[in-house]
Amino acid sequence: MTQRPPALSHLTSAEAAESASRGDVVLIPLGALEQHGPAMPLGTDTIRAEDICARVAARLSGGVVIAPTLPIGVSPHHLAFPGTVTLTTTTFAAVVREVVLGLHRQGWTRILAVTGHGGNNATLTTVAQDLLGSHPALRFAWTPLTAVVPDVVARAGVSKVHGHCGEAETSQMLFVAPHLVREDLAEPGTTRPDELSDLARLARSTTYPALSLRYDELSANGVLGDPTAASADLGAQIVTTATDRICDFITRWSAI
Amino acid sequence: MTQRPPALSHLTSAEAAESASRGDVVLIPLGALEQHGPAMPLGTDTIRAEDICARVAARLSGGVVIAPTLPIGVSPHHLAFPGTVTLTTTTFAAVVREVVLGLHRQGWTRILAVTGHGGNNATLTTVAQDLLGSHPALRFAWTPLTAVVPDVVARAGVSKVHGHCGEAETSQMLFVAPHLVREDLAEPGTTRPDELSDLARLARSTTYPALSLRYDELSANGVLGDPTAASADLGAQIVTTATDRICDFITRWSAI
Amino acid sequence: MTQRPPALSHLTSAEAAESASRGDVVLIPLGALEQHGPAMPLGTDTIRAEDICARVAARLSGGVVIAPTLPIGVSPHHLAFPGTVTLTTTTFAAVVREVVLGLHRQGWTRILAVTGHGGNNATLTTVAQDLLGSHPALRFAWTPLTAVVPDVVARAGVSKVHGHCGEAETSQMLFVAPHLVREDLAEPGTTRPDELSDLARLARSTTYPALSLRYDELSANGVLGDPTAASADLGAQIVTTATDRICDFITRWSAI
Amino acid sequence: MTQRPPALSHLTSAEAAESASRGDVVLIPLGALEQHGPAMPLGTDTIRAEDICARVAARLSGGVVIAPTLPIGVSPHHLAFPGTVTLTTTTFAAVVREVVLGLHRQGWTRILAVTGHGGNNATLTTVAQDLLGSHPALRFAWTPLTAVVPDVVARAGVSKVHGHCGEAETSQMLFVAPHLVREDLAEPGTTRPDELSDLARLARSTTYPALSLRYDELSANGVLGDPTAASADLGAQIVTTATDRICDFITRWSAI
Amino acid sequence: MTQRPPALSHLTSAEAAESASRGDVVLIPLGALEQHGPAMPLGTDTIRAEDICARVAARLSGGVVIAPTLPIGVSPHHLAFPGTVTLTTTTFAAVVREVVLGLHRQGWTRILAVTGHGGNNATLTTVAQDLLGSHPALRFAWTPLTAVVPDVVARAGVSKVHGHCGEAETSQMLFVAPHLVREDLAEPGTTRPDELSDLARLARSTTYPALSLRYDELSANGVLGDPTAASADLGAQIVTTATDRICDFITRWSAI
Amino acid sequence: MTQRPPALSHLTSAEAAESASRGDVVLIPLGALEQHGPAMPLGTDTIRAEDICARVAARLSGGVVIAPTLPIGVSPHHLAFPGTVTLTTTTFAAVVREVVLGLHRQGWTRILAVTGHGGNNATLTTVAQDLLGSHPALRFAWTPLTAVVPDVVARAGVSKVHGHCGEAETSQMLFVAPHLVREDLAEPGTTRPDELSDLARLARSTTYPALSLRYDELSANGVLGDPTAASADLGAQIVTTATDRICDFITRWSAI
Repeated sequence: MTQRPPALSHLTSAEAAESASRGDVVLIPLGALEQHGPAMPLGTDTIRAEDICARVAARLSGGVVIAPTLPIGVSPHHLAFPGTVTLTTTTFAAVVREVVLGLHRQGWTRILAVTGHGGNNATLTTVAQDLLGSHPALRFAWTPLTAVVPDVVARAGVSKVHGHCGEAETSQMLFVAPHLVREDLAEPGTTRPDELSDLARLARSTTYPALSLRYDELSANGVLGDPTAASADLGAQIVTTATDRICDFITRWSAI
Repeated sequence: MTQRPPALSHLTSAEAAESASRGDVVLIPLGALEQHGPAMPLGTDTIRAEDICARVAARLSGGVVIAPTLPIGVSPHHLAFPGTVTLTTTTFAAVVREVVLGLHRQGWTRILAVTGHGGNNATLTTVAQDLLGSHPALRFAWTPLTAVVPDVVARAGVSKVHGHCGEAETSQMLFVAPHLVREDLAEPGTTRPDELSDLARLARSTTYPALSLRYDELSANGVLGDPTAASADLGAQIVTTATDRICDFITRWSAI
Repeated sequence: MTQRPPALSHLTSAEAAESASRGDVVLIPLGALEQHGPAMPLGTDTIRAEDICARVAARLSGGVVIAPTLPIGVSPHHLAFPGTVTLTTTTFAAVVREVVLGLHRQGWTRILAVTGHGGNNATLTTVAQDLLGSHPALRFAWTPLTAVVPDVVARAGVSKVHGHCGEAETSQMLFVAPHLVREDLAEPGTTRPDELSDLARLARSTTYPALSLRYDELSANGVLGDPTAASADLGAQIVTTATDRICDFITRWSAI
Repeated sequence: MTQRPPALSHLTSAEAAESASRGDVVLIPLGALEQHGPAMPLGTDTIRAEDICARVAARLSGGVVIAPTLPIGVSPHHLAFPGTVTLTTTTFAAVVREVVLGLHRQGWTRILAVTGHGGNNATLTTVAQDLLGSHPALRFAWTPLTAVVPDVVARAGVSKVHGHCGEAETSQMLFVAPHLVREDLAEPGTTRPDELSDLARLARSTTYPALSLRYDELSANGVLGDPTAASADLGAQIVTTATDRICDFITRWSAI
Repeated sequence: MTQRPPALSHLTSAEAAESASRGDVVLIPLGALEQHGPAMPLGTDTIRAEDICARVAARLSGGVVIAPTLPIGVSPHHLAFPGTVTLTTTTFAAVVREVVLGLHRQGWTRILAVTGHGGNNATLTTVAQDLLGSHPALRFAWTPLTAVVPDVVARAGVSKVHGHCGEAETSQMLFVAPHLVREDLAEPGTTRPDELSDLARLARSTTYPALSLRYDELSANGVLGDPTAASADLGAQIVTTATDRICDFITRWSAI
Repeated sequence: MTQRPPALSHLTSAEAAESASRGDVVLIPLGALEQHGPAMPLGTDTIRAEDICARVAARLSGGVVIAPTLPIGVSPHHLAFPGTVTLTTTTFAAVVREVVLGLHRQGWTRILAVTGHGGNNATLTTVAQDLLGSHPALRFAWTPLTAVVPDVVARAGVSKVHGHCGEAETSQMLFVAPHLVREDLAEPGTTRPDELSDLARLARSTTYPALSLRYDELSANGVLGDPTAASADLGAQIVTTATDRICDFITRWSAI
């Protein structure tokens, strides 16, 4: 398998059997189809998830296999912006659960969902919870991307209001898929608390209580932060460090 | 309403109409029925949620009404311990969604779910997401308890491995319901990483990747941390500060 | 356990294990959040259910444990009146089924749901039916309150049109929670067939065919019967006799 | 339409439009496929439901139309006996709801489900409840058969333990479909309380608390009562009186 | 059983047990309640399904038993025409799956659904697929009617645009239920491509891509083809040949 | 957009808005993750679906946009072979429906699902049916691949038993993704009826009655037909002709 990419969809049935019996960790890239401001594509989250799965697989050179990407996630907060398509959390959960249990039925026991989209996090947690109840022996883990390296982002220095399409996310795209970023169209979104409405400022002021708002209540162009301050360099730091940490996790997991 | 407790279930239909038209915030206490170690009762999370809702209502003296408690939550990770009863995340989400939409149908527009149980958090987030898609004008927020005051807990100093039934939670119970804590039976649970299995240590070593384990894989007695080091004093700090912050949130919210 | 109230949520995990292995009957109080006329609170049905469970437990002094109350039921017929919140029958059934099966998984084998709200009866029956198919060995029973003592009510003499918030229900509240009844606001509802519309008279004239109407089609103030004719005395007769009969049932059941 | 039977399935689309605009009441016969002892067929409940719908239609000679029969109902309590097939209450409810709403969409506003099987009653009630919430203007009623004439049955005198396949039900079949009754095979089932197990006696001793048992816990041959004491005469009284009462209900309903 | 019709609903429980242990094939007639043009009844598909099941059973004289008819199917494409009632595909699938699994639970292992309505085909296929995954040993087959004998229809010569209520279907009804066909009202529907709208012509021009249209987009009177060219003779050929082929299938199946 | 590939996930939100208002047809590639014999990869159906969508888009040079691929389909018949992962038809239908309605909500009105996997066909039909009922104005079409060109396959001459992984499918892969075909491992599967079991021969002998079998009942290596007789040439004919026909359909559709 060394020369062939570890895409599950590229394996034959017999190779899949080998992967499962070898104890490979299955990575499932998860994304979203949602607005990413004026400059970035709808599939930004999917692209980043697939990219980091490929990097992880390349770094580990063995021991992982990459399942097909689930490219549509949970994005109701972006529906006011064109192009955004969402699944309900119920349907997204059903798909993830059936894919995870399907892989388990074929013999894999360690499965790691890798989501490029934070909106998928809560549903992934609910799937993990339900699986603990129904399949107590299955090992299902999941990870976001940027949130794996909050220290790298903090060190870089970002806008006071920062998030979707901001410095951190745009930088990643400049590193992994620069041809898909329309830098000429990039423009800052909401970057300072005083640009927010009272309600939005309240919602952003605390972790808890948690008050979810629609993105059109947070930013006119769908951007939080300043994509014009992004750089491929910062993107490289984020992606590389996240890759390191995910690889480290997998290595330790596989050894147990 | 000043003399009567602001329990929605204690209001007449006419009083409920007034509360809704007055713009009251509805608090929904959410708990769990799950093991809480040798010394604390199964309803610990429910008791703490109800207690803080009462404190918030008392402090604000008006402007909030407390919906009936939903006493069973999402607890599959505790099922190996006697007495634990869980809902699936699908059913828990359905109940919360129908209650929130039912309140909205009767005229309330700001609803804050208050959960004493962290296992409910992810499902509450998925409900909030789905409501953003289906009812973009409804304002639904939710909050945990201890996680509102991480600074207070950190300042107090707790075990290296700390969490369920640990110093922070036991202290709260010693403050709000000491008669339900069997201090004579309290004993430390897992308190140091070296007491954990390799898998449990891995799971606890990172925020992300997130690997959920059953509690019987984390602790023999269902406890993370040292309840014998708990104190009503620390409980008072946690509860009082959390009450302050939730009241502050509601005050700002109600003013918008 | 003699000194401590037999609330499941107040037991520790170990005490719950003992309760299950001792063969305790689990009582589940079920209520509603719905209009109860000008004088009674929205939670009237929940309050009465919790009260009778406590009386049953006190009378039997052992052998029963009380699960957390499920305070929202099936009340679509009252939705035109403020404050009423309902679950769909599907969601109500799901909650009851998961709670009953969750208790069964933890070792209890006899479970008695006690509903203060007649609107829950049909769904409880469907849950019992489905459980007969899926778990033929589990023993699940349920009971209403007032309908346990139709003879007591008949003997007392009530309005020709009588039911929700009428003499029987108001009397119970005057006995068990008089501080929550606003007697000054009590007023008769529909009490005679000639006050009903033709459709309502038809619907009330037969047990079968059964034609369900909304309560705003039956009564202007949501009341059927005359709450001003209620008395704590009648309430005591109803509650005490119902307690007797439910205790008798449990005693016989536990002995088999 | 006078010469043609008022079966909806026999009408053309144009005739259906006329029926709806004329304000016809739609009857939906509901049955079951379940054991009916040694002498009666699995479809007994369906046969009786279809028969009474035809009688009602004949008697009224206009103003009603009969929808297709739904021949499988809720029968989990009979599953231990060969031939019994049940739907879950969820699926049965979904079918009834979609059929009722489908008829309503085509213009009918009064719909009466006629069930030959008591096991369907609770689910029909839940459908009626949910429709009150979602379609407050639709008029949906339902009726059982034997329970419409409890006085006739009481007057006839039946076994102390009486019910499924007993004197009342067998008599109806002897009247409406004698060729399907194997009188030579008829034999008494459980007829006296002292033949019941303690648990079964408890379950039968009260209306409430309600404890549902499987039929194989109640009777060795699936019969409650004595079918050998049945007569076509009693069947005629039951069926004719029930027809009268249902016709009376429809006549009054149609006039409102 | 030779003298009695092989209707499952007419068998006693004991006879059902014999049928299952004898290895009978169970036929399930499936129909629809939908517009069939000016001349044919809403239940046309149900009538034809029941008819052919009876013919198959008569021909084979043993070895099959006929389950109760499911008379409402999947007909959303006809909803613009009065009288049409449809189930969602989800509910139709649930009913079929529960009936099939219910029969299997009672011992039958070969089940053949016979649908008179082509709109049911896709859902039957999805049920068969899901059963392959969940019950790999159960044998579930299904069959349409007219599509079993495309050669007979082709030989007869039909309109260029032909289908619902056309020569083939009307002929069958003239053969099996002539008293339900209002020949005086029969009139051609859409019979030539040039009568179709551009969209409808596109939709009819290819098997794939498949573009489903509503019937009111295809034909003003709900008819495709010319029912006035139908004949009982052609109906006899279609029905008899289809009966032959289904019998042949069952005979071979039963012998394996 | 001329230089950029018409992948929806590569468009910005503003470009998506333009695509929708321009009236673009959205293509949704649908595949499967299932065994494809000894020589072809698990993702064969997905690969072919994505390939033909790209060809169609390239040929039309405008007027279409390609949604993200849904890479897991309905494959329960292949579960006995390693690597196969399936969704239930219910979940697959939910995903397709939510994606189609999500695209519709964002302004697209013509949507064409392109499935490389025949096992998805029935569920796609059910989705189309339900959408006709709930969204009568939406235009949703779907197409398989090989079944668009049955004449090309027939002309080529294939094994008597032919299908999954046979000459036609393998040829397509040799044309579109030869680097993923392990020709050295290719071997004939079941190619003649006399190699089939009696049951399999029966199942394959008729279109209707339709009897679905598991693939391990049809072929030891999961192959029907002879992949060693495949050729890139035949693949080119199949793919090119299918592309032509789908483009022709879209061109006509877009012009209406």
